[in-house]
Amino acid sequence: MVFTKTGDTMHMNELIIKKRNGLAHTKAELKYIIDNYVKGDIPDYQMSAWLMAVYFQGMTDMETADLTMIMAESGEQIDLSPIPGIKVDKHSTGGVGDKTTFIIASIVAACGVPVAKMSGRGLGHTGGTIDKLESIPHVNVALDKENFFNIVKKVGVAVTGQSGNLAPADKLMYALRDVTGTVDSIPLIASSVMSKKLAAGSDAILLDVKVGSGAFMKTLDDAVQLAETMVAIGHHNGRQTVALITDMDRPLGQAIGNATEIAEVVEVLRGNGPEDLIHESITLAANMLYLGGKGAYEDCVTLAEGTLKSGRSFEKFVEMVKAQGGDATVLTEPAFAEAAYKKAVLAPKTGYITHMDAEACGRAALALGAGRYTKTDALDYKAGIWMLKKTGDAVEAGETIAYLQSGNESTLAEGETRYVNALTIEATPPVKRPLVFARVTADGTERYV
Amino acid sequence: MVFTKTGDTMHMNELIIKKRNGLAHTKAELKYIIDNYVKGDIPDYQMSAWLMAVYFQGMTDMETADLTMIMAESGEQIDLSPIPGIKVDKHSTGGVGDKTTFIIASIVAACGVPVAKMSGRGLGHTGGTIDKLESIPHVNVALDKENFFNIVKKVGVAVTGQSGNLAPADKLMYALRDVTGTVDSIPLIASSVMSKKLAAGSDAILLDVKVGSGAFMKTLDDAVQLAETMVAIGHHNGRQTVALITDMDRPLGQAIGNATEIAEVVEVLRGNGPEDLIHESITLAANMLYLGGKGAYEDCVTLAEGTLKSGRSFEKFVEMVKAQGGDATVLTEPAFAEAAYKKAVLAPKTGYITHMDAEACGRAALALGAGRYTKTDALDYKAGIWMLKKTGDAVEAGETIAYLQSGNESTLAEGETRYVNALTIEATPPVKRPLVFARVTADGTERYV
Repeated sequence: MVFTKTGDTMHMNELIIKKRNGLAHTKAELKYIIDNYVKGDIPDYQMSAWLMAVYFQGMTDMETADLTMIMAESGEQIDLSPIPGIKVDKHSTGGVGDKTTFIIASIVAACGVPVAKMSGRGLGHTGGTIDKLESIPHVNVALDKENFFNIVKKVGVAVTGQSGNLAPADKLMYALRDVTGTVDSIPLIASSVMSKKLAAGSDAILLDVKVGSGAFMKTLDDAVQLAETMVAIGHHNGRQTVALITDMDRPLGQAIGNATEIAEVVEVLRGNGPEDLIHESITLAANMLYLGGKGAYEDCVTLAEGTLKSGRSFEKFVEMVKAQGGDATVLTEPAFAEAAYKKAVLAPKTGYITHMDAEACGRAALALGAGRYTKTDALDYKAGIWMLKKTGDAVEAGETIAYLQSGNESTLAEGETRYVNALTIEATPPVKRPLVFARVTADGTERYV
Repeated sequence: MVFTKTGDTMHMNELIIKKRNGLAHTKAELKYIIDNYVKGDIPDYQMSAWLMAVYFQGMTDMETADLTMIMAESGEQIDLSPIPGIKVDKHSTGGVGDKTTFIIASIVAACGVPVAKMSGRGLGHTGGTIDKLESIPHVNVALDKENFFNIVKKVGVAVTGQSGNLAPADKLMYALRDVTGTVDSIPLIASSVMSKKLAAGSDAILLDVKVGSGAFMKTLDDAVQLAETMVAIGHHNGRQTVALITDMDRPLGQAIGNATEIAEVVEVLRGNGPEDLIHESITLAANMLYLGGKGAYEDCVTLAEGTLKSGRSFEKFVEMVKAQGGDATVLTEPAFAEAAYKKAVLAPKTGYITHMDAEACGRAALALGAGRYTKTDALDYKAGIWMLKKTGDAVEAGETIAYLQSGNESTLAEGETRYVNALTIEATPPVKRPLVFARVTADGTERYV
């Protein structure tokens, strides 16, 4: 039952014991582990024992940085140098209603900083950027490399699915971690995220680390530690990296879903939309512009705000959708994000919404058809939730606080139960919290709370 | 690459996380884990992650006792009730030169307490009881159940190899632990040993827990903890259990090997032999007699000593060898334990032997052909070491301190280097230590040092 192909089991067994005993690995040891695991010469059962030892003993910053680069080097590494300018990548650790990528990529590209963005699909309660983009008819989210580069060069921005061979070590390790209780480890989360970013080839990286009920990281301290680890990895491997810690203790904006979220993106790019989403998008865009060499951070905030107001970022978004083969004319049509069935959610009592369980809101949207339970599930692009009242808002019993929508009427009841249960309504309003809790750079961490 | 057959991966993943987070499993959870692992429905990679979580978080006494019984129940459970009397089993955690089983089984059986002993083969630096017995020509070490029971009933003692289906969960788990850095865990070692003892069906169990350079347990505290855990398991599952903590910081007796060790057993049973081996054998035999209901412990010591002196235990050993088809006439012939090649080891300097690395001595014997590097290696039954000087003895440079023997002349050089390197010779004698450090019963632990 237990066997290996290398014939040097002793070596991996000894490395497991080394980590188990709390010692740091050399780069050569990490390379031995990762390379042989990808080749299939180190079996899953040794890798999972090692991952559990890492869970308990952690890794030094040096180990984590080395591990990440080795994982990045396990597959294709994209060379973005044919595209002129400082290429800035952006990554979110995943949240509910997080559609900022489209807004900030449009602002940043409109300011002349090229954005060559590779994104993933959603699984479980968090949505996927590629799924959202795909809700626009005919848009191509599987651009080949030449096409991808050409659109970035011509338009300044393109968003496509991840190459099949980007950091294959991470794909294998993540699948194993997912079933062996070894997901929640900061060095393993950090190396997973950053290996894909390093392989994607940008010059600088902006990380949006979510914290709260809808995020992986449940506490600010954990989120800061993860952010600091990822910034150190980027720095160690020669990529300027900045991380923002942002609130995911309620969904972001008003829309959860795919077409619904794109509709909200269009609202914001056309000068409307909810304040929280606008503020967070401006903050992220300003940081990307800063990383893209557009001057002092305060000037970048002004630049981002001005660009959004001018309408140039909406033009840029339309230009990108068209360049990727999409039908941009639908974006301003109300029917684009309207589903066959719609149901109003009424406030069950009078008071203030004091808390929204963002993960539970995401699961309500999932139940409506907006997400996937398994990798092969088909999406209902128009399914989703439109939230009228959010954390801090006063509500009156019987008032409409949200609309649920779906192409499948039978999903509305479960969606409603889940959504109502996700809300806490109390007599007194909650304390107002900022949207951005901290900013982490190689120079240090600035906390705003 | 990562898949399961049960379709309820989530369950095992959640149990891994539960243990990882330091919580105790219920008996039903442990049964789910073990039964599904044995069936092949829980894959090795989840089992190894769980084992590593157990390594770090430990187990309660209740968990360990439940785990052990579930492992015992994973295969055949032997019913010894057809054999009249209190059946007492004995287990050693493994050492170098440990041939006490034959001596004490002979003494105990001669006193009327039946011994139905199933033993294992050796691997690595520790010898196996079955290998040693097999050095006697024609002896049958694979008795079928009927034959085994009949010999115990008629002679009072039989020693045979372990049934193929005794605690199969332990076999699978041990093979996995061996290559995933999860061997050195007290609850896992304790459940491994005790699951086989529980399945072997005796009424009472005597454990010989070795501590020192030739043992698994390197410190007295660890050995006591292991012993207390095993005694608690026995007690919890209704078997009277006693553990002795004995010294394995030098090989036991003068002989290491197979036929050489049997020759030393014969010496002791005939009233000669080294003092350490005699003393340890009497102590173990007295404890077995105590567990077998032969009166107060002090009376059992007297009974064991008297029986050994009387020669009745040697007669019992000869009777057993004959009953198992062996040629007992060779036992008293010098040629029985003489190999084709013999080499004297000379003291490299004058002084006192202050330390013997027992594991290294075992590896020297292994190099001579007395042991196995892999499960399929053939043994040279007459290979081994005869030690003339041991820890505490004064030696003069050039004096013969041991004889090495082997059927393969080319092994003598490596055997000599390894043996000499295993010894520390210094100017002043070491402090004398007792052979038995502690005695652990369900009532508590008595330490002698």
